[in-house]
Amino acid sequence: MTLHGKHLIAGTPSGAGPAVIQAVNPVTGEALAPAYPEATPDEIDRALDAATEAFHTGRTRTADERAALLERIADEIEALGDVLIERVMAETGLPEGRVRGERGRTTGQLRLFAGVVRDGSWVGARIDTADPDRRPVPKPDVRRMLIPLGPVVVFGASNFPLAFSVAGGDTASALAAGCPVVCKAHPAHPGTSELVGRAIDRAVAATGFPPGTFSLLHGATPETGLALVRHPQTRAVGFTGSLRAGRALFDAAAARPDPIPVYAEMGSVNPVFLLPGALSERGEALAEGLAASVTLGAGQFCTNPGLVFAPRGDALDAFLGHLGAVLATTSAGTMLHAGIRAAYEAGLGRWQATEGVRPVAAGPAGDTATPARPAVFTTDAETFARTPHLHEEVFGPATLVVQCDDPATFERLARRLEGNLTASLHGTGDDLRAHAGLVRLLEDRVGRLIFNGFPTGVEVCHAMHHGGPYPATTDVRSTSVGTAAIFRFARPVCYQNFPQEALPPELRDDNPHGLWRLVDGTFTREPLHVAR
Amino acid sequence: MTLHGKHLIAGTPSGAGPAVIQAVNPVTGEALAPAYPEATPDEIDRALDAATEAFHTGRTRTADERAALLERIADEIEALGDVLIERVMAETGLPEGRVRGERGRTTGQLRLFAGVVRDGSWVGARIDTADPDRRPVPKPDVRRMLIPLGPVVVFGASNFPLAFSVAGGDTASALAAGCPVVCKAHPAHPGTSELVGRAIDRAVAATGFPPGTFSLLHGATPETGLALVRHPQTRAVGFTGSLRAGRALFDAAAARPDPIPVYAEMGSVNPVFLLPGALSERGEALAEGLAASVTLGAGQFCTNPGLVFAPRGDALDAFLGHLGAVLATTSAGTMLHAGIRAAYEAGLGRWQATEGVRPVAAGPAGDTATPARPAVFTTDAETFARTPHLHEEVFGPATLVVQCDDPATFERLARRLEGNLTASLHGTGDDLRAHAGLVRLLEDRVGRLIFNGFPTGVEVCHAMHHGGPYPATTDVRSTSVGTAAIFRFARPVCYQNFPQEALPPELRDDNPHGLWRLVDGTFTREPLHVAR
Repeated sequence: MTLHGKHLIAGTPSGAGPAVIQAVNPVTGEALAPAYPEATPDEIDRALDAATEAFHTGRTRTADERAALLERIADEIEALGDVLIERVMAETGLPEGRVRGERGRTTGQLRLFAGVVRDGSWVGARIDTADPDRRPVPKPDVRRMLIPLGPVVVFGASNFPLAFSVAGGDTASALAAGCPVVCKAHPAHPGTSELVGRAIDRAVAATGFPPGTFSLLHGATPETGLALVRHPQTRAVGFTGSLRAGRALFDAAAARPDPIPVYAEMGSVNPVFLLPGALSERGEALAEGLAASVTLGAGQFCTNPGLVFAPRGDALDAFLGHLGAVLATTSAGTMLHAGIRAAYEAGLGRWQATEGVRPVAAGPAGDTATPARPAVFTTDAETFARTPHLHEEVFGPATLVVQCDDPATFERLARRLEGNLTASLHGTGDDLRAHAGLVRLLEDRVGRLIFNGFPTGVEVCHAMHHGGPYPATTDVRSTSVGTAAIFRFARPVCYQNFPQEALPPELRDDNPHGLWRLVDGTFTREPLHVAR
Repeated sequence: MTLHGKHLIAGTPSGAGPAVIQAVNPVTGEALAPAYPEATPDEIDRALDAATEAFHTGRTRTADERAALLERIADEIEALGDVLIERVMAETGLPEGRVRGERGRTTGQLRLFAGVVRDGSWVGARIDTADPDRRPVPKPDVRRMLIPLGPVVVFGASNFPLAFSVAGGDTASALAAGCPVVCKAHPAHPGTSELVGRAIDRAVAATGFPPGTFSLLHGATPETGLALVRHPQTRAVGFTGSLRAGRALFDAAAARPDPIPVYAEMGSVNPVFLLPGALSERGEALAEGLAASVTLGAGQFCTNPGLVFAPRGDALDAFLGHLGAVLATTSAGTMLHAGIRAAYEAGLGRWQATEGVRPVAAGPAGDTATPARPAVFTTDAETFARTPHLHEEVFGPATLVVQCDDPATFERLARRLEGNLTASLHGTGDDLRAHAGLVRLLEDRVGRLIFNGFPTGVEVCHAMHHGGPYPATTDVRSTSVGTAAIFRFARPVCYQNFPQEALPPELRDDNPHGLWRLVDGTFTREPLHVAR
C-alpha cells in the first residue's frame, strides 16, 4: 500500500497546497516519506460542506446501518495488517506490543459503540402521554429523544496514534451519535492517519453512507485548527492535547457568532495518595506499581501519575529508596517527537532548579533520537504549596513525591489541587475510613477516583468517566472514553402532539426496537397500550 | 408581612449599599416600596462563600432530605397566600388568574423535582463489574454516577416572576441536583423576590439544610451580574432573558480562567407553518388559536409565535381577515415594565418602516401605564429573505405573516432560520407527509416541534425540551423546563475498585434505593449477586 500524501475529502484525495508536513522517526531521527500538505481554506470548506450534506442525507440511516459502519471501520483497520503496525511504530517510536494493543483497543471501542447504537436505548427516549380531559388546559402528548448535533471536528492526538486519533474515541462516538466527522490528522503521524482514513473511507463506501460522512485533513499550523473550529458548519469539536492548544480552540469556539461545544481533554497531574497503612504494609509493591505506571509508554499518558502525596517517615524513606532503585534500572523510553522531549527536559529542569525540590533517582540515558529517562523528585508540603509550577503537568516519565507531615496535610494540599482526570488512593480499609474527608475533597476535583490502583490503563466500558474539572478538560460534564462519550455529540429534540407515522421509530407507541424509555415517569421497554 | 428591602445572604438580611432599586406598578406607573440595594462585592463574596460551604456540608444529605426541602419550599410559597399574589400583580401587571396559575406551576415543578430526586434513578448509575481473570490485564470494577456541580448562580426572569424567578425552574433543578443557589432577583419584581426568598429560607431552616444553600441578592447593573458569573466559586449559571444580556454572561463565563457552563435561554421567534390543507380546512380556527397564543400574557413569552409562514392565496386572505378581526377586538395587555414596552414599540416601528411589510390589523390602545396593543403585519418571502431584522424577535403581542408562493418556499425560508425554541406546523395528515423534508429541516433548527398546536403553554413534564440552537440558548444540549433540566447542574464521577462501604449508596451492590442502573451494559433495578 503506497501512501499518497494527500488529504481525504469526502472519499477523494486532495492536495492543493505544497507538501510541508513530514513525520520523523523518533528512534532514528529520520524523516519519513511522503510529505503532506497543509489544508487550504477551500479544502476546509469542501470538507465541511460535504459533512453537512452527509449529515442531512445520512439522518435517514437506521441505527443498524450506523452500527454496521462502525463495525466495518474496525474490520478495515484490522485488514490493514502489519502495514499499519509498522507505520505507527516508525512514526511514534512506540513498541510493537503497545501498538498492537492500541489497535485492539481502537477496534474494540468501535465495536462497543456499534453495540450501543444497535441497542438504541442511549437516545434517552421520554414520553409523556396526553390527557385531553385535564383542567384547566388539556395535557399534550410530548416525546423527546437525542438526535445528532451535526458535523464534528476531531483533532487527532499524538500520544494515542490509533485510539485517540483518526478512528479513535472521538470519531467513534461522533459517528455513533450520527455526526459526520472532519478529522485533522496530528502532524506527528500523518502516514498512520492516511492509512486509517482510507480504511474509514472504504467502510463508508462499503456501507453506502454518503462520502462526506468522513474527511481527513492535514495541518500543522494553529490557523488550520482554528479555521476548522470557527467554520460556520462545525457543530462540535473533540480534542486531546495540550492545555495551551485546547484552550485556544475553546476560546475560538466560544467567540463564534454561534458558540459550539469543545470537548478538549488537556491532561492532568493525576495525584496519588499513599495512605499510612498501605505505605507501611506494602511500600515495596507500591513503589514497583508506581514505577511501572510512571514509565508506561514513556510517561506519555494523560493519566500519568505525576504527583504523589505520602506521609513523611521511615516507611516513605524505604518506599523512595525502592522506587529509586527500580527507576534507576528502567530503560529510557522514546518520546513521540522532539518537541515533547524538549518540553519534558524543560519540566525536569524547572524541578531541578526549584529550592526545596531534590532528585531521588533517574534512569539511564537512552540512545534513541528522543529518549526520556525516568525520574523521581521529592519535596515538602510547604514548598509544594507555595510553588505554582509544581502543580503543573510535566508530560513524561517523571513524578514528584510530596512529603506530608501529618494526615491533615493531605486535605490541605488536596484543596489546592486544580481539576484533574483522576486521583488514586492507596490504603487499607482503615485508611479509607480515616480519610473519608479526603475522598469527598478529591471527588470535587477529579473525574475518576481509584482505590489501590494506578490511573494509567483507562478501561473502555459503559461506566468509565474520563474527564474532570478544568484544566483537565473544558467540559466537566463529558467523558472522552467509554460509551457515555456518545452524549457529547447529541442534543434533545421534542415532538408535541405528533401523529404516530411522523414520529421517529424510537418514540412510536409500538416501540419497534424495544428501547428502554421513560414513559410517564416510569422506565419500561413495553409498547404503549393507549387507544389513539 | 412587611418587606425589609434587603438581600438574604445565607438566611440573614443584609443591605450594605444604598437603596436604589425600586419596582414600578406597570398598570399605574407608581413606585412600590421598599427600595432595594445593589449587591456589593463583599456581599457577593459572602453569598458564594456560604454556598460553597453549604455545598460541601450539604453533600451528606440524602435524596429524601433534598426532596423534603423542595416540597417544603412549595409549601412555604403557598403559605404566603394572597400577600404573594397581590405583590406579583402590583409589580408585574399580570392578571390574577395568570399569577395564581403561575404559582401553581412553580409549586408543581418543585414537587415534580422532589419526585425525581426521591426516585433517584436520574443519577444515571452505571456499573461495570470486575474480571480479575481477563488477559492481558484484569478488568477493574468501574462505577459511575452524576454528582452536583457546586454553587449555581440563577438570574430571575422578568416575564415569569414566579416560575422562572427566585424559586423557578433553574432554582428547583439546581437544588434538586444538590447545588446551592445564589439568586439574583430581577429588578422589576424585588418585593416578589424577597417574599419567595424568605419562603425558601424558612424551608432551608425547617429541613435542617445549611443556610448557605440559598442566597438572594438584588442588583440592576450589568456589573453585579458579571461579578456573580466571574466569581471563582460559581460553578454554573442559569439565565432567562435577552440575547444581549445572556450573551454577555456567556462571554464572561467563557473568559474565566476556568470556564463554566452558562444556560442562557434568550428567546425565539417560534415560527409557525400553516400548511395548505389545514389553512383551507380550518383557517378560522387557526386564526383564533394564533390570536390567543400571540396575545397571551401580552405576548411576553419566550415561546410567543412571532413569525408565521403560510401559502399565498384566498385561504390565507380569509385567515388574515379573521385574524385581524379577532386582534382588533383584543384589548391591550399591560407589559411588565416601561423598558419592555419601549422595545416592543421600537420593534413595531421597524416593521412599519420596512418596505414590503404592511400592517394587517392592530388592537385598541390600552389605558395602563405600559400598554401593548396587539398587532399583525404581513410581508412576502423575498422581503423576509433579504431583511435580517425581520428574523429577529419583537418581544410582545405581535406576529409577522410571511406569504409564500409555493411549498418549496417553506423549505427555502426554513433553511435561513436561526436557532429557535420551537417550530409549529398546522396541517392535515397529507400536509405532514408532503412536508416531511420541512420537518427534518426544522428539527435541525429548533428544540421542540409542535403539530396542530401553538408553542405557548410549555408543559412541565419529563419529556419536555425547552431549549434550542443558538441564539435561542447558549447550550443546545440542555433544557430549562421539565425534569431533564436537572442534568444541567450535574457531572459524572467514577469510582474504580472502591470497597462497598466507601461507595455512595447509588453504586453499591445491594442497590438500597432500587435505582435503575446500567450494569454491564444492561438496565436493571436488581442488586448485584456477585460473590465479593
